[in-house]
Amino acid sequence: MRVSVIGGGSIGPETAAVAETLGERLAERGHTVVCGGLGGVMAAVCRGARATGGETIGILPTDDREDANPHVTTPIATGMGHARNALVVMNGDAAVAVDGASGTLSEIGLALAQGRPVAGLDTHVVDGIETVDSPAAAVEHVERAVDRDDTGSD
Amino acid sequence: MRVSVIGGGSIGPETAAVAETLGERLAERGHTVVCGGLGGVMAAVCRGARATGGETIGILPTDDREDANPHVTTPIATGMGHARNALVVMNGDAAVAVDGASGTLSEIGLALAQGRPVAGLDTHVVDGIETVDSPAAAVEHVERAVDRDDTGSD
Amino acid sequence: MRVSVIGGGSIGPETAAVAETLGERLAERGHTVVCGGLGGVMAAVCRGARATGGETIGILPTDDREDANPHVTTPIATGMGHARNALVVMNGDAAVAVDGASGTLSEIGLALAQGRPVAGLDTHVVDGIETVDSPAAAVEHVERAVDRDDTGSD
Amino acid sequence: MRVSVIGGGSIGPETAAVAETLGERLAERGHTVVCGGLGGVMAAVCRGARATGGETIGILPTDDREDANPHVTTPIATGMGHARNALVVMNGDAAVAVDGASGTLSEIGLALAQGRPVAGLDTHVVDGIETVDSPAAAVEHVERAVDRDDTGSD
Repeated sequence: MRVSVIGGGSIGPETAAVAETLGERLAERGHTVVCGGLGGVMAAVCRGARATGGETIGILPTDDREDANPHVTTPIATGMGHARNALVVMNGDAAVAVDGASGTLSEIGLALAQGRPVAGLDTHVVDGIETVDSPAAAVEHVERAVDRDDTGSD
Repeated sequence: MRVSVIGGGSIGPETAAVAETLGERLAERGHTVVCGGLGGVMAAVCRGARATGGETIGILPTDDREDANPHVTTPIATGMGHARNALVVMNGDAAVAVDGASGTLSEIGLALAQGRPVAGLDTHVVDGIETVDSPAAAVEHVERAVDRDDTGSD
Repeated sequence: MRVSVIGGGSIGPETAAVAETLGERLAERGHTVVCGGLGGVMAAVCRGARATGGETIGILPTDDREDANPHVTTPIATGMGHARNALVVMNGDAAVAVDGASGTLSEIGLALAQGRPVAGLDTHVVDGIETVDSPAAAVEHVERAVDRDDTGSD
Repeated sequence: MRVSVIGGGSIGPETAAVAETLGERLAERGHTVVCGGLGGVMAAVCRGARATGGETIGILPTDDREDANPHVTTPIATGMGHARNALVVMNGDAAVAVDGASGTLSEIGLALAQGRPVAGLDTHVVDGIETVDSPAAAVEHVERAVDRDDTGSD
């Protein structure tokens, strides 16, 4: 499946390590990472996914796909600024939030508004998201939640 | 100035009364209301603003401006779904959130990400927004915050 | 009704005179002008409409409503670049194209794709648009076409 | 490089054959196809590209990536309707138009407005696009035009 990873554009080494591990884990499980295509959590999760041979889609706020971080395999330019946040979460089956400020908060809201399950790692505490304590737990949560949704819709 | 009012699409009578009073107060102070153009808080704040002769802009998720509530003086169709949330807050100088669920949360995030001051009435508690206890206090807060920004940029 | 006026951002005095007369005529007939909010045809048609007391909506490509020309009464910022062209024609009941290059061509295509009647003044010759030779004829054409659509849908 | 292929959603067998050959040719040359992700020319060009092992990106008007035709390897949902046309051409280095009606015309305009070289096969005759008579000639034209742009910008 596809998992949108949302998080801060400017982060410290610990958060980068968490995001990178999350990317590795998602790729190992065969999932494609969708993100905003820029730096910080977005770059770290893509780097992790690439290290394990995964695919990464970066949906950029700018109109130039060269703005993507080097670990994005499929950059998509939008030229839409913050409005592209809606597309980042629309293109995943679930979302994992890592750290992050107001942009991440908007993506959590947009993910929930579009019915996507959301796991949170060291991020905003918001009704409706599952707070987890490790990348592995985040992946487990979104896999189970999407599986349940699929069964539920049968 | 323009004030974006964001909030739940499906609300009870108490929240409607708060939103309506907020609309009256904003119009009395000469401000234009910007909102998502649909029902709930959006309709109530527009009704209040119209009762005091104010202007109301409704930025709709659909591609049909007939979908606007009857109290919107300038409906703007977008056909963009949730991505229009970014435009709702971009078109105000400040925002007031009233009640609301995940869509409102996304708009709070988008407002903060775009540097807009935000006052909150019975809504999500989020770092960076000013929680207030009345429509009058909300209007006072955003007036002061915008005034300060303007002075600061001189 | 609302009429989207689309056309070149960089024009000579003759085209400006045509666009200004078109704006006057639309306002005299009680129509609101919708345009892209910037210069050239957009500024000239708004100036004409304002001279006759009309309303003008400018749907901007940028995220700053201060970028609107001074004759726009309701600027709407989008921050979406060329993608906002779809919103310019979506928000009119019909469109009039005046002069213009590739951006105008895209708006003609988007207007037709959204089922809007289009009149053309010294602009691209395209199947499906009505080429006219004066602002008055343009207004007459779109009034008749919208009227016919309304009757047809009864 | 990436080539946006734009064209009619409802086509006959001859146009389908042209689009399919175009897709084969683009993939043989190592190019990725970008399109609107739906049927007609979009499906035919993707089918051709896949037959030769190429990659295909489909940028959809809807919010559900399941709406993509089965030959799209990377569907991107936008939920933006016609406004997504801007993204289809923004994400290619050049465009080839095949047949098509008003939606295709809008994409030709948007491609030119964004400085993309455009080749046209049995499509609108528009200033600024190169009319060609075969898929091979279309590919040759866009390769040369992009190459020239790259050299020109050095």
